[in-house]
Amino acid sequence: MKEFELIKRFFTDQVVKRKDVVLGIGDDCAVLHPTDNQSTVITTDTLIAGVHFPFNTPPRAIGHKAIAVNLSDIAAMGANPSWLSLALTLPEVNNHWLTEFCAGVFELCEYYNVELIGGDTTKGPLSITVTAQGVVPEGKYLSRSGAKVGDWLYVTGELGDAALALKCINGHVNLNKAQCEQVKVKLDYPSPRVLVGQTLRDYASSAIDLSDGLISDLNHICIASNVGANINLDTLPLSAIMQETVPRKDAIELALSGGDDYELLFTVSEYNKVGMETALTHTGTPFTCIGQMNTSKVISTTLDSKIVPITSSGYEHFATE
Amino acid sequence: MKEFELIKRFFTDQVVKRKDVVLGIGDDCAVLHPTDNQSTVITTDTLIAGVHFPFNTPPRAIGHKAIAVNLSDIAAMGANPSWLSLALTLPEVNNHWLTEFCAGVFELCEYYNVELIGGDTTKGPLSITVTAQGVVPEGKYLSRSGAKVGDWLYVTGELGDAALALKCINGHVNLNKAQCEQVKVKLDYPSPRVLVGQTLRDYASSAIDLSDGLISDLNHICIASNVGANINLDTLPLSAIMQETVPRKDAIELALSGGDDYELLFTVSEYNKVGMETALTHTGTPFTCIGQMNTSKVISTTLDSKIVPITSSGYEHFATE
Repeated sequence: MKEFELIKRFFTDQVVKRKDVVLGIGDDCAVLHPTDNQSTVITTDTLIAGVHFPFNTPPRAIGHKAIAVNLSDIAAMGANPSWLSLALTLPEVNNHWLTEFCAGVFELCEYYNVELIGGDTTKGPLSITVTAQGVVPEGKYLSRSGAKVGDWLYVTGELGDAALALKCINGHVNLNKAQCEQVKVKLDYPSPRVLVGQTLRDYASSAIDLSDGLISDLNHICIASNVGANINLDTLPLSAIMQETVPRKDAIELALSGGDDYELLFTVSEYNKVGMETALTHTGTPFTCIGQMNTSKVISTTLDSKIVPITSSGYEHFATE
Repeated sequence: MKEFELIKRFFTDQVVKRKDVVLGIGDDCAVLHPTDNQSTVITTDTLIAGVHFPFNTPPRAIGHKAIAVNLSDIAAMGANPSWLSLALTLPEVNNHWLTEFCAGVFELCEYYNVELIGGDTTKGPLSITVTAQGVVPEGKYLSRSGAKVGDWLYVTGELGDAALALKCINGHVNLNKAQCEQVKVKLDYPSPRVLVGQTLRDYASSAIDLSDGLISDLNHICIASNVGANINLDTLPLSAIMQETVPRKDAIELALSGGDDYELLFTVSEYNKVGMETALTHTGTPFTCIGQMNTSKVISTTLDSKIVPITSSGYEHFATE
């Protein structure tokens, strides 16, 4: 176990030192002192090699993704990310692997001013569990349950590229090498929409991050908010590569059911629509209105102004869940 | 993955509902609102089957231990445990296993009024990562770094029984069945010293929980506090079973270097000694003075008032670490 104790050294040399961390790595616990009148948000995600990322994923990408998927949850709450705990299980100690993994972790930590405050290193099959925390002014967090009938449905960025990258890796689509590399960046290095989330807390009625796929995650909003939704498939934001390389029907399928996009899906009232659009434009992150919430309690889709049935394989009617 | 989504149902039916949990399990994050003027302490521990517990450990014991080892860290900070996140990786979904595991988890949660606020369930080799948080009045937490020369060294409970149980399981000692079962309870169901930790925050100068063994963990206090320590081996608290079944030399060895005791090791000034002893007596938890801190910066031991060298296999001189 001595060797695994040494791993901790890789994690002590970090740039970020937050004032609200009273005691960082190295004692039985870290001690945090959040500002008064702030709530704390907390999320945990485990990534397992061969399940959540291919075995040959570069270690830098694994480090990036382990942090990004958690910051994406923080973003969906409208919170500012602040502290991370990292539980790392490794089959062996490999200095190159650890150096690259840490580079992926700390790049995001430094960008978002997030401090690693503790964790655990153990020997076993490769898996990473991150617990991330953020702070949000009291009562201002976003949840899945605030969507109202008539609210507009928005999404950031472009949909389906991570799923397209997986198809490319598995040889199920014909992309040239440059195109494949470009979509693989979306899969390996997702950008958590932190600034968008913080901006939305003054405007959105609900929000969720897209990890399982648009239909599946919209479903969570519909159930939690007790509403339905219609998606206008003509408006789904698709990347240039997606449009060039995949038939339209398949592209829509990937956008609806592909996972790992880590974009934000959110709803905004008619009253807040213009204010939100103005504020989000300043963040520089693209966003698209893709539909509207309704009373139906189910998800429907329209294409060329006609209702089309939902055929995404990942989709199951939420009334039966 | 659908089946693994269902696992979450096992964790939603909990008795504990804390007022400081604004939003519990079921959104992208949980939302917590700690009382003003309280600091938060946080710890993460991973348990892996075959490494941290034998493969045939009862699931109830695994659930208990996963929580107990984290609460033990919270106790060592003098904090009140409050919230848990649980990342559970399972090779398969087994209802009986999950029911028993949850019973082990929630027994401790209910006893200590700790709420499970989130987590993740994934498929893979059995491992459990728990992130536990607690609260402590601002500036009142205990750490490893406050021990002073002349402070008295104390430990709760009895030492070495968990290591004795492991030897018994592996057939390396001769205990009868009843004795073996009795020490196995110490290994499988450790009691986190939560009440002792909370009491100590008004008296102790430093504290740590015993997970790696007395010498190893005392070493952490010595390094962090820049002091040395002498342990009086005659005073080491040994259980009746240990004294009956193991030669004295071996018993001392187990007490010094055996892991998994989850007792608290702490230091108290001469000034606070009587106050601490009176307060701890009210908790009902046994405790023993086993030595004193000194200027040497190394750990020494005395037996029958004579200095004896440290021979514990787990021990390495801390100056070289």
